[in-house]
Amino acid sequence: MTIESRSRTEINGATRLIAIIGDPIEQVKSPIFYNRMLADAGANAVLVPWHALPDTFDVVMKGLLETRNLDGVIVTYPYKQRALAFATSLEPMAERLGSVNVLRREADGRWTGGMFDGLGLVEAAKSRGIAAKGARVQLIGAGGAGSAIAYALASEGAASIAIAENDIPKRNALVDDLKARYRDCVITPGCVGLKDVSLLINATPVGLNDGDGLPVPIDGMTERTAVIDIVPGRDTELLCRAAALGCRTLGGSAMVEGQTGIVLRFLRKIEANEAPAGGNAAAERA
Amino acid sequence: MTIESRSRTEINGATRLIAIIGDPIEQVKSPIFYNRMLADAGANAVLVPWHALPDTFDVVMKGLLETRNLDGVIVTYPYKQRALAFATSLEPMAERLGSVNVLRREADGRWTGGMFDGLGLVEAAKSRGIAAKGARVQLIGAGGAGSAIAYALASEGAASIAIAENDIPKRNALVDDLKARYRDCVITPGCVGLKDVSLLINATPVGLNDGDGLPVPIDGMTERTAVIDIVPGRDTELLCRAAALGCRTLGGSAMVEGQTGIVLRFLRKIEANEAPAGGNAAAERA
Repeated sequence: MTIESRSRTEINGATRLIAIIGDPIEQVKSPIFYNRMLADAGANAVLVPWHALPDTFDVVMKGLLETRNLDGVIVTYPYKQRALAFATSLEPMAERLGSVNVLRREADGRWTGGMFDGLGLVEAAKSRGIAAKGARVQLIGAGGAGSAIAYALASEGAASIAIAENDIPKRNALVDDLKARYRDCVITPGCVGLKDVSLLINATPVGLNDGDGLPVPIDGMTERTAVIDIVPGRDTELLCRAAALGCRTLGGSAMVEGQTGIVLRFLRKIEANEAPAGGNAAAERA
Repeated sequence: MTIESRSRTEINGATRLIAIIGDPIEQVKSPIFYNRMLADAGANAVLVPWHALPDTFDVVMKGLLETRNLDGVIVTYPYKQRALAFATSLEPMAERLGSVNVLRREADGRWTGGMFDGLGLVEAAKSRGIAAKGARVQLIGAGGAGSAIAYALASEGAASIAIAENDIPKRNALVDDLKARYRDCVITPGCVGLKDVSLLINATPVGLNDGDGLPVPIDGMTERTAVIDIVPGRDTELLCRAAALGCRTLGGSAMVEGQTGIVLRFLRKIEANEAPAGGNAAAERA
């Protein structure tokens, strides 16, 4: 029997399930990162991709949460806000952001929501030599992931964060809350000149599809700006252009991989000492 | 990286899903048999166990059927009759039996129900030298699986089938329909003396739990009677007692394994020539 044919027999009737729900789903890297760490930890659990369309998302979620051998749901684009309604209690960052990227089944059948995108990205960046501390950041997008990233950067000591977001009330609410919480970080709405930016982060879905183009113009950007694009699983135009300029770059898979250990500890699938906070992020974009 | 840690990375965002739904679910062997055959066929698909409780079965099924990367649902005890309501069209055996053990998503979003338990059992028995042709059968239980087995045995040329079932109207309906369809097979209701029986089949859930005891008394049974128990994944008291008498025995995993190839062809996951009708049944109870 070959290695490949042996492998799927690991899944048996007693295997516990974690689903990652999103639309689209084909591009997600989480099953690879998570299942590798679960296997290394000797856990009889598996992460499976779960594709729900927007008009039936609620029906699919209800079915998942009533599935008795399913211990967690990881939530990805575009459902991080909608999934909030399925949590019966929230971790502080999920409550602050109004979005969740993971739901955990409790022993009493309730569901706790957590949001680890920001921490995951900061950990992944750190492992690639891109420090949040002291960074002058231009963030594009203040949705669930973008907001999570903003809080994580501010709490890690970023010098400044400029936040571009077309939804002005959403943007202003985030700016105001960050200003109130992190007085040592200069928070501004909109875009600043890229020559003053040490870290550009795209936290919009622009780049998910072919032909999307750039989320913002990058005229004037130099190799001194590190560029992170959270669009998972592909080399977006932004990343390609940045790499051509000689910038350090980091793709969306890093945010996912950087939080693998964090989320599996939250789901109680691995022990606190089984993985570093940043997971095995060194393999990003392998 | 070890073989084990490599293996789960086979599952990626593009992996197609098949769920096996039941209550309980921990004991099912299908994930092992199916995933081995899927891996051998090079299909990017995985079978995962799915535990639904009776009071939320409908909610869980609705969620599964709306999951866009899920191509099929295998249905096991106790849901083979309830799952019928989720099929938009039925294969002939499923329609006749009023139960399904697999639902297939069609390109237009409809769901076709099939019932292959009977054929699976006959194929598995044949691979162990227990022929249906000419057999004098005592069948215990005329539920979904029991009825499927009765039709398969009659169509394969069993000499006689006695059918014991506590639900008398259900039993009589099955007896009458079998009599009308298979005039060369002697169909009788109730129990006959075991000394006249060449093949005893338990198609009830008795034996699923510790302390269940025997589904029928087996006083007078000799080593000349082959014994099949469809309770999956365990050596039931019936099988243990039969083995002690020197009978040939076959456990419920054989029915599952015997139909693996049949069901995966029905689900269009393997080609018609990729597996024998009986699957890889030789490894039963391994």
